[in-house]
Amino acid sequence: MRLLPGWLQHYRRADLRDDALAGTITAILLVPQALAYALLAGLPPEVGLYASVLPPLIYALMGSSRTLAVGPVAVAAVMVASALQQFADGDSSRALAGALWLALLSGGFLLLFGLLRLGWLSYFVSHPVLSGFSTAAAITIIGTQIPALTGVSGDRHAAFFGFMVDIFPRLTGTSAVVAIAACATLGLLLVGRYRLSAWLSALGLSASRSTLAVRMMPLVIVVLALALSAHFDGAQYVAIVGDIPQGLPQLSISFLWLDGWTGLIGSALLIAIIGYVESLSVARILAIRRRERVDPDQELLALGATNIGASLCGGMPVAGGFSRSMVNFDAGARTQLAAIITAAWVALAAFALTDALAPLPKLVLAAIVVVAVTQLIDFKSIFSTWRYDRRDGIAQLGTIIGVLAFGIEPGLLIGMALAIGLYLQSTSDPHIAVVGQVPGTEHYRNIKRHQVSTWPALLLIRIDENIYFANAPAIESHLMDLVANTNELRNVVLVLSGVAKIDASGLEMLESISHGLKDAGVVLHLAEVKGPVMDHLATTSLLKTLTMARVHLSTQAAVDALTQKKPANA
Amino acid sequence: MRLLPGWLQHYRRADLRDDALAGTITAILLVPQALAYALLAGLPPEVGLYASVLPPLIYALMGSSRTLAVGPVAVAAVMVASALQQFADGDSSRALAGALWLALLSGGFLLLFGLLRLGWLSYFVSHPVLSGFSTAAAITIIGTQIPALTGVSGDRHAAFFGFMVDIFPRLTGTSAVVAIAACATLGLLLVGRYRLSAWLSALGLSASRSTLAVRMMPLVIVVLALALSAHFDGAQYVAIVGDIPQGLPQLSISFLWLDGWTGLIGSALLIAIIGYVESLSVARILAIRRRERVDPDQELLALGATNIGASLCGGMPVAGGFSRSMVNFDAGARTQLAAIITAAWVALAAFALTDALAPLPKLVLAAIVVVAVTQLIDFKSIFSTWRYDRRDGIAQLGTIIGVLAFGIEPGLLIGMALAIGLYLQSTSDPHIAVVGQVPGTEHYRNIKRHQVSTWPALLLIRIDENIYFANAPAIESHLMDLVANTNELRNVVLVLSGVAKIDASGLEMLESISHGLKDAGVVLHLAEVKGPVMDHLATTSLLKTLTMARVHLSTQAAVDALTQKKPANA
Repeated sequence: MRLLPGWLQHYRRADLRDDALAGTITAILLVPQALAYALLAGLPPEVGLYASVLPPLIYALMGSSRTLAVGPVAVAAVMVASALQQFADGDSSRALAGALWLALLSGGFLLLFGLLRLGWLSYFVSHPVLSGFSTAAAITIIGTQIPALTGVSGDRHAAFFGFMVDIFPRLTGTSAVVAIAACATLGLLLVGRYRLSAWLSALGLSASRSTLAVRMMPLVIVVLALALSAHFDGAQYVAIVGDIPQGLPQLSISFLWLDGWTGLIGSALLIAIIGYVESLSVARILAIRRRERVDPDQELLALGATNIGASLCGGMPVAGGFSRSMVNFDAGARTQLAAIITAAWVALAAFALTDALAPLPKLVLAAIVVVAVTQLIDFKSIFSTWRYDRRDGIAQLGTIIGVLAFGIEPGLLIGMALAIGLYLQSTSDPHIAVVGQVPGTEHYRNIKRHQVSTWPALLLIRIDENIYFANAPAIESHLMDLVANTNELRNVVLVLSGVAKIDASGLEMLESISHGLKDAGVVLHLAEVKGPVMDHLATTSLLKTLTMARVHLSTQAAVDALTQKKPANA
Repeated sequence: MRLLPGWLQHYRRADLRDDALAGTITAILLVPQALAYALLAGLPPEVGLYASVLPPLIYALMGSSRTLAVGPVAVAAVMVASALQQFADGDSSRALAGALWLALLSGGFLLLFGLLRLGWLSYFVSHPVLSGFSTAAAITIIGTQIPALTGVSGDRHAAFFGFMVDIFPRLTGTSAVVAIAACATLGLLLVGRYRLSAWLSALGLSASRSTLAVRMMPLVIVVLALALSAHFDGAQYVAIVGDIPQGLPQLSISFLWLDGWTGLIGSALLIAIIGYVESLSVARILAIRRRERVDPDQELLALGATNIGASLCGGMPVAGGFSRSMVNFDAGARTQLAAIITAAWVALAAFALTDALAPLPKLVLAAIVVVAVTQLIDFKSIFSTWRYDRRDGIAQLGTIIGVLAFGIEPGLLIGMALAIGLYLQSTSDPHIAVVGQVPGTEHYRNIKRHQVSTWPALLLIRIDENIYFANAPAIESHLMDLVANTNELRNVVLVLSGVAKIDASGLEMLESISHGLKDAGVVLHLAEVKGPVMDHLATTSLLKTLTMARVHLSTQAAVDALTQKKPANA
């Protein structure tokens, strides 16, 4: 850990204007989104503001990304909602304390992983699973916004499928005012995000100006809705945000005295992993664009401290969000100073704008959430993943169906288990090729794919996978089958160019094969053993006491040695 | 599935005498062991006899091993006991029906795995975990025999550690007669197994005769105990076997009407896996000795049918046992006819010997169990595994401690999870070597281990692991670090000789690196791509649209192509 972040040590005055502008633009967008994500998490709206002030300041000092924007994000918010559903069961003060515990615990996990260098744990969320999870979480989130958009309440304990089956027949109970307001808001936001830019360009507006206009759409809609709601007394027709406490809360640890917080540990772990994976992938995408580097271990520490900070300032679990980071980056942010300026604006809003925001209809915030998460839905990736790798496709589909049928956390766990199980299954029956010499060269290739020379008394077998417990039995069967049909055989060479590891089960298997072949008058050799595998085998008796006559540097060396001289038992 | 087993189609009359003798010897040993293992499983003693008649007959017709002896085994018995503990909670008729369900379900699982070719599922019990599990199960079994050996009852619900803490202080309550009888029986059996053979050899007896004498020891002790117990009315002092129903039960499916049997599914799956893994490894050891072959898929079907048979004939889950198979093999069995003869003798015993066995003290059977399982305890393997592979060592120790501290099933699951988790962890940070040319050859080796030539504008990087979700982030970091420090660099060649698989996450990573390098003016190439990986990549856009100029057959071809012509952007 460094005392001062890199961007601050070498701050260039030229970047100041860019950072200030980007920080301001991001703040304008963030305020309504922060309120919306807090509501999505089932928390009072101001919690989203609190989580947007201190956490980005901590990240700015500790994070290794120069442009990642940290704060409440949609997926973490819905995970919080799902974790608190059972835990708080409608008790709002218990939900709030639970959210603080979730932030503290997930921050603690990240810090611990960073200190113990356990960042690799997060690798076990594969790309397809993460992508499927984001898609399914987004669909779930859209479902959760239906009550706010229609005024019809649904079964909060059900996963998406059950929720839809429950609420769908009752949507006819929506009042006309609510239906029109919701459709208008959603329509304007969707047009703003997906069509406005093209229209403005067609009207001759420059790309940067039309982008700015598009970005401002949510703000325009919020202001419009506030004006309408204030003028027509919106609270008569729709649920409004209502009173928001002014200012920022003091740092507090009073939530620590919550009973039953241990029941949140599992959820906090999942939130930590997903938040970290999402943050890191966003940070990487941004870093590559400017040829900067992101340090995965430093990110663990930074996001850990950031979440602990969120818990102390009355916030909710935070992460580096895709949309907020893209806005920040596109608005021209050069360093984390932009995030600090954003945080200052949000703090100002918490002091000055809370009264003004009170009449805002909640359905506007719900519509903002719905439109924000549509970009997480990626059906194309399902098809491309399925085409490229059937196993990845199954894991991705399993995640999506799991989330929609059983809920956020079970779905994620199902997906991770599927990905791991299917990968292991794929290594359990490895590719094993009999190889021969490409004539006139020292190259050896699969006899089934290339025109190569072979020798009757010599079998060259290449194993294309680590030899370990999950495939040792299959490899043994394959080898025995290959050896069984060859009467003239005197020497077998295992070409281990594709083997990076031989575990204890693999070693036992090799010893048993070596013994078995010896009884059949065949000598087992190894070739192209990688350095680390050789170091490992050198500690065993396999190389010394068994019949493996030699370990050959290359396949060619093995062939030279074994075809020139007659084997002893010929 | 074949109509007639191979051994029967080509039966050689010369084998008949060997088979008859071996079958008879094995039967003599099996009768007391069968009673003992049934008691170990918490079932009436006759259940062990029933499980030793029909099941071996079915296996003889379906199994692919010529000498595997199938019947009740110690580890499966203790797993049955552990599963029925909660389930039956002391209700003996419920326990019996539960044991039949366990046999039916585990037989069903094995049959299903065989039909679906899911035998690889059993590979996930690694050698170290299986060895640790056997050791810990044996220790647990010895603990469970203490009440029978001392007359002091213990906390049946506790795992080994808790059980010992509970029972140890109360062992002083053992009566003198019981203590002397237990010590004498154990002492005689231990001497018989571990010392007698050496003594008899020293007296000049031939090896085969002294082996036979050793094998007869348990029978001698049983006869002796029966005589003593009948003469002194043993039931006054010790628990005796008591009345055993005469004959064999009719085939029955009345146990199917047991409520709550679904609670046994998980246990049945574990019993099926462990029974299969144990049977297969014993069958393999025997097959190798006579250069026979075992068919893993056929074994699934055979053991599945065998267990279903066990459930219908009032038996308990069965497997191919190590000790019974070794006895059978050493006694000279040539084919499964020996097993059929054994079964016939056991059936005869069930009809003729049940009255004679009634006065047998249970402590004799307990002592037979204790001495039989001592051979499963293998502490040496703990040290050798630990020395060879730290991860395997942790999994093995974890299994042992898990079984002793938490019980049979949790311990096994802990061990399997540890083995899988640690293997994945080991692949999550793969070995990546920068390679150079061994001068004057076409071989390329790690620059850190060998004297090799390199080129300033060309970096050859060999990745020694499949590229998949759990290591894609680490590989990306490594590659970026390697590339970051080289200004003159124009071409990077990834040598994929050690890569058998690139999943969707790996593909995305390669695409992102290729894009990133392109921005930095560096071209990414692939070399030595294996056939299956190439087939896989060919379906993607990576090879077509990205900046990867070429896929080179060999590293040498890549070097030739990239060092002769200047790169375009030099």
